[in-house]
Amino acid sequence: MPPAPVDLSVFSSALTTALAALRYGETPEELYEPIRYSMRMGGKRIRPLLTLLGAQLFTDNWQPLALKPALAVEVFHNFTLLHDDIMDQAPLRRGQPTVHTKWNPNVAILSGDVMLVRAYELLFDIEPTLLREMLQRFSQTAAEVCEGQQLDMNFETEPQVSIAQYIDMIRLKTAVLLGFALELGARLGGASVEDADHLRRFGTDIGIAFQLRDDLLDVYGDAATFGKRVGGDIVSDKKTFLLLTALEQANEPQNATLRSWLGRNTLETAEAKVEAVTAVYDQLQIRPQTEALINEYFQDALFHLDAVQVPTERKALLRGLALQLMERES
Amino acid sequence: MPPAPVDLSVFSSALTTALAALRYGETPEELYEPIRYSMRMGGKRIRPLLTLLGAQLFTDNWQPLALKPALAVEVFHNFTLLHDDIMDQAPLRRGQPTVHTKWNPNVAILSGDVMLVRAYELLFDIEPTLLREMLQRFSQTAAEVCEGQQLDMNFETEPQVSIAQYIDMIRLKTAVLLGFALELGARLGGASVEDADHLRRFGTDIGIAFQLRDDLLDVYGDAATFGKRVGGDIVSDKKTFLLLTALEQANEPQNATLRSWLGRNTLETAEAKVEAVTAVYDQLQIRPQTEALINEYFQDALFHLDAVQVPTERKALLRGLALQLMERES
Repeated sequence: MPPAPVDLSVFSSALTTALAALRYGETPEELYEPIRYSMRMGGKRIRPLLTLLGAQLFTDNWQPLALKPALAVEVFHNFTLLHDDIMDQAPLRRGQPTVHTKWNPNVAILSGDVMLVRAYELLFDIEPTLLREMLQRFSQTAAEVCEGQQLDMNFETEPQVSIAQYIDMIRLKTAVLLGFALELGARLGGASVEDADHLRRFGTDIGIAFQLRDDLLDVYGDAATFGKRVGGDIVSDKKTFLLLTALEQANEPQNATLRSWLGRNTLETAEAKVEAVTAVYDQLQIRPQTEALINEYFQDALFHLDAVQVPTERKALLRGLALQLMERES
Repeated sequence: MPPAPVDLSVFSSALTTALAALRYGETPEELYEPIRYSMRMGGKRIRPLLTLLGAQLFTDNWQPLALKPALAVEVFHNFTLLHDDIMDQAPLRRGQPTVHTKWNPNVAILSGDVMLVRAYELLFDIEPTLLREMLQRFSQTAAEVCEGQQLDMNFETEPQVSIAQYIDMIRLKTAVLLGFALELGARLGGASVEDADHLRRFGTDIGIAFQLRDDLLDVYGDAATFGKRVGGDIVSDKKTFLLLTALEQANEPQNATLRSWLGRNTLETAEAKVEAVTAVYDQLQIRPQTEALINEYFQDALFHLDAVQVPTERKALLRGLALQLMERES
């Protein structure tokens, strides 16, 4: 029997209410309206949810202890999206014009800067004995996320990227923030340093697994469910785990096929490119290999969750959310 | 007899040593080398000096208490320069290529983001009883500086800017950070909230006076001493205190002259433009009016310095630095 669906509604609605009540500033309008716009765009609010669930493992009193810091994580995440979208020249996010498109890049730079400041501010009510530690961990995480973004940009023009380098990049760019979100909630909820560290590693593992799954779904996902065109990464030559693995394992003809398509980004050949590259992936069994690695990270995540010293039933929500993120039943 | 020249060398060399020893991070190189480059560019280090002098008013033990936080102020200031230079598309700063020119705008955005994070980190060693207050004041100041930069950009395209709006813009963009630098040092040195607030207002007043002086020197300064081409603001139609005052006080023919030159930015007519606009300024006595306002802010600054409850001789360095910034003898 599949597990009962996880009911996260009490946490989600606490977040929704608190986010709606957040004030960033008023004038000049050109500075603050883009922040409100970017925060209104939505998203799944996974990261602040992880903070609340991290706290809830250790205390029923999670709301006064962890809600504002959870918002800090979400505001920080949206700051990174805002600046990343300028750098990637992305016209749309979640179907809506990005801030630098709707306004201009200068407004996007400056609004993002203020969001980073506001993210810090949301941490200042943390109790004095934990404040310094949490601020340092937040800052370390923030710098790592920037390092990950820089590596991601570097990879676009680097001829050779190893799989280890790629995993390290997604760890920094995506996973460490999920890990920190949990660690933060755990410490605020009263966790020991050891338990908080297990939760950080649980979150980081889930983050890497989630990104690898994203790479996989780009090629093997259902366009309707996934919400993106299948093969977008292939068309744009994105150095995903799939491509890097294929390049590493290809025999000479397979390598020739891949190399012949890389750099050919015309609209007319897009379909043929996706088909040809996917065929090489199929021959090399890239899909089961990726699934195996995702599973490895997922199992490691569960190991760290198991190691946390709280009764198993308290972990049900977090375990359920992890399964949901992986779209797995168990 | 003019006052003895102020000897700030013990503070300056403490700053120089500490700045040279600062580590921002190592990899990726593309993220951290621009930070080192931008911090190496130099500048007068006025802001961290104010933090040290703010502390020195109240304690001889300023070095362990205020040196790292003083660096936070300097790193923050350089972060704002880095992002402002992208927005202003400035090719040079202090005669060297700006980061977005030497690397690219993406690198400049991301390196700046990490600098803001590092600035915060430099504050975390503040003693626990002051940490939260100082972080909040720093964050408020940081947001205000961004508001000032946004207003400055807005003014470029706004047809009408009042003098009050202009003063408010330079207060936010430039002056509040000087005020905060002093307030921070004062509080770390043991100042009461009242004394720290007087020093904040001293710093803010000096900041506004300094910016107005900058506006004035652009037109009436000696090119060699000032280090910039005379009339640069006039050529670029910058809405300075001088221009806004002239527009407000001009009679019809004077207004016609000013309006006929605004928007004409060709290289060939630059000299004639500077001459014609300066002639209107002279007719309207813009120079003595500006000097009078500078003096008003300067006197108000001195009033706040006088109000600080420490022996007059302890204030000599700070008073001397203020005079030096104004290039006045007393």
